[in-house]
Amino acid sequence: MHDWQYSERARHLTSSAIREILKVTERPDVISFAGGLPSPATFPVERMRAAAERVLTESPQAALQYSATEGFAPLREWIAKRYSRDGLTLAPENVLVTTGSQQGLDLIGKIFIDEGSRVLVEAPSYLGALQSFSLFAPTYVPVPTDEHGLLPEALTPEQTAGARFLYAMPNFQNPTGRRLPMARREALAAVARRDGLAIIEDDPYGELDYEGQRLPSLMSLAPEHVLYMGSFSKVLAPGLRLGFIIGPQAVIAKLVQAKQAADLHTPSLTQRIAYEVVKDGFLDTHIPSIRTLYAAQANAMLASLAKHMPAGTTWTPPAGGMFIWLTLPPGIDTMQLLEKAIAQNVAFVPGAPFYVGTPPANTLRLSFVTVPPEKIEVGVARLGALVADALARSDSTHLQGSCKCPSTTN
Amino acid sequence: MHDWQYSERARHLTSSAIREILKVTERPDVISFAGGLPSPATFPVERMRAAAERVLTESPQAALQYSATEGFAPLREWIAKRYSRDGLTLAPENVLVTTGSQQGLDLIGKIFIDEGSRVLVEAPSYLGALQSFSLFAPTYVPVPTDEHGLLPEALTPEQTAGARFLYAMPNFQNPTGRRLPMARREALAAVARRDGLAIIEDDPYGELDYEGQRLPSLMSLAPEHVLYMGSFSKVLAPGLRLGFIIGPQAVIAKLVQAKQAADLHTPSLTQRIAYEVVKDGFLDTHIPSIRTLYAAQANAMLASLAKHMPAGTTWTPPAGGMFIWLTLPPGIDTMQLLEKAIAQNVAFVPGAPFYVGTPPANTLRLSFVTVPPEKIEVGVARLGALVADALARSDSTHLQGSCKCPSTTN
Repeated sequence: MHDWQYSERARHLTSSAIREILKVTERPDVISFAGGLPSPATFPVERMRAAAERVLTESPQAALQYSATEGFAPLREWIAKRYSRDGLTLAPENVLVTTGSQQGLDLIGKIFIDEGSRVLVEAPSYLGALQSFSLFAPTYVPVPTDEHGLLPEALTPEQTAGARFLYAMPNFQNPTGRRLPMARREALAAVARRDGLAIIEDDPYGELDYEGQRLPSLMSLAPEHVLYMGSFSKVLAPGLRLGFIIGPQAVIAKLVQAKQAADLHTPSLTQRIAYEVVKDGFLDTHIPSIRTLYAAQANAMLASLAKHMPAGTTWTPPAGGMFIWLTLPPGIDTMQLLEKAIAQNVAFVPGAPFYVGTPPANTLRLSFVTVPPEKIEVGVARLGALVADALARSDSTHLQGSCKCPSTTN
Repeated sequence: MHDWQYSERARHLTSSAIREILKVTERPDVISFAGGLPSPATFPVERMRAAAERVLTESPQAALQYSATEGFAPLREWIAKRYSRDGLTLAPENVLVTTGSQQGLDLIGKIFIDEGSRVLVEAPSYLGALQSFSLFAPTYVPVPTDEHGLLPEALTPEQTAGARFLYAMPNFQNPTGRRLPMARREALAAVARRDGLAIIEDDPYGELDYEGQRLPSLMSLAPEHVLYMGSFSKVLAPGLRLGFIIGPQAVIAKLVQAKQAADLHTPSLTQRIAYEVVKDGFLDTHIPSIRTLYAAQANAMLASLAKHMPAGTTWTPPAGGMFIWLTLPPGIDTMQLLEKAIAQNVAFVPGAPFYVGTPPANTLRLSFVTVPPEKIEVGVARLGALVADALARSDSTHLQGSCKCPSTTN
């Protein structure tokens, strides 16, 4: 056998827990709250088909040929216009189209992280980002959070000194579903200005606020300090692998060079199809329908949780997005719980992989968007019984679960 | 202004010469031999449209949803079958679908190259590969070539010791258009076995041999030591960004992990469309039509070169692919020549950027596939006059150019 000589970097590569779990839960009899997949019921199939037809009729050769690394010009222009709000004015040169947001994370890791560079991340943070950044061997610094998200006051000048960036997901964070309140956004922007802190604002779920009341982006509050990452995965279709980065032109230019080496450009065909679909304001009617669906799904899960979860279990009702984060009573290990759950055909993602450093053992992430409400009820009931059982073994009392309903929005 | 703290790696990022030149040559009045683009006349537009329609009718939700990092299973199977030849038997597990071959280069750089790792490359070598690998800061070791390509005897045990891999393009290399003869392939495979040398065999043009007489891949000669990179860009359409890596399952598994962090997966839609187009043997009739077109284009350029190039200019007639490599008389700098050529609305790519270390100044790459024959004649005539003029200034004699026609195939 050949002895393949891998790089040091390759040793940082591990298959994600989410990925391994997803393999198990592909069985149709499993009620899976583990996925991070949007509901396929929201995919605008007819429009996509018509768009593909139009693109391959009207500009087939351009759609099938190599194209610019920066992205399809009309799509960049559309993105620049759409995100010119909250006092911000953007040009197409502020936009780079990426092959999904995941590629954005890889490119950002590449151009900013040296071995040992300090990178600030929320505790917990998005697993896919940690995976991408880890290839470049940063030193992670966890930033504490509460039920409203990241705590800006934890970002002291000592904490931010020398940090390459803070990676944050202010809207309906993956995994916690939390949204950062306005006052904290302003505090975070003030920290960025005070300390010259770069912020990566990852915002795949921002459009999915159930009330349709968006909060201003960090980018709009501190445009010089923020790279904003957007995605078509949750508002159109993830199978297109279309995301984008918005930021200062000099940084975008650097990212373009990194992208050229990474895949030359995002497929011309998918970019043109997406542009055809969105160009005439389709998202203005489409996104509200996703919001309505997800809000109903969230309510179904919240009702089931209130009914079936034993006391000591807490969660925050999401104002948007796809996830609910559960904190179980201390002493329950959700990695162990998962094994029992899967034996009963229910799946979730344990919270531990979302943390850098020492994770709490008793958290887990539930996705509520793809499971029908009646199955949500069945699945959560099974989960509640398992938690109650684990509690009984650890000799605790059984009471009813409680919603950690936010009383303030500071 | 915010002071963005880039990584050391980001300093290796430069915009490619090809890229900058392509920008200039987008003007319609320029006769460009600079592009590396396949002829859009070869894109099977009708079939692509029908395939897109079918995919978005028969399996729209799967085509628009997240999918496996390894690639669309039927496409992997198709690739495994197609490349099971010359004594080789492949399984789908030997195949990773990539977002174009360029992504394959990035993933390979990631998992194999540490700072300072020795990486052997042909002199000259494919610029896009050098760009990708350079991000991981290898120490390049150029391997000498002649008009038949890489010289296996130059690969002494001292040269290969500690090398992470040899990167080679044995078929109709970019930029030289050369094909490695059979005896050299066998010699190279013997070196791989003797020294435990890993080889990256990049083969985007392998199917484009004008006589339809393919030589066995390095992979088939030394399967344990070779990672093979293939692409749909030159036989179907580059705008899909579809490539693949074939290799030992353990290496593919590592690459899958790297790809997961890079873009989760290649777009589900483009993979399924490509599979629809190729699954029933379409390439068996399609590729010969590309070969016929490119052979005619190559002949047109060869005839023009013979007619218009002054003595001392040499080239090798390609047996396939898209490029002819010119060596001008010593003393002519093709970077300077390019400026004059562009002033006369003709473009090519100077050879220097394709070399690591000290490049010769007097080489250049011509692509012949997208310019109509009558314009090839006009463009080459202008180029010939410019070379003659440069020669006159350097006080040389003007004779007729010569084809370095191979007399042997060692």
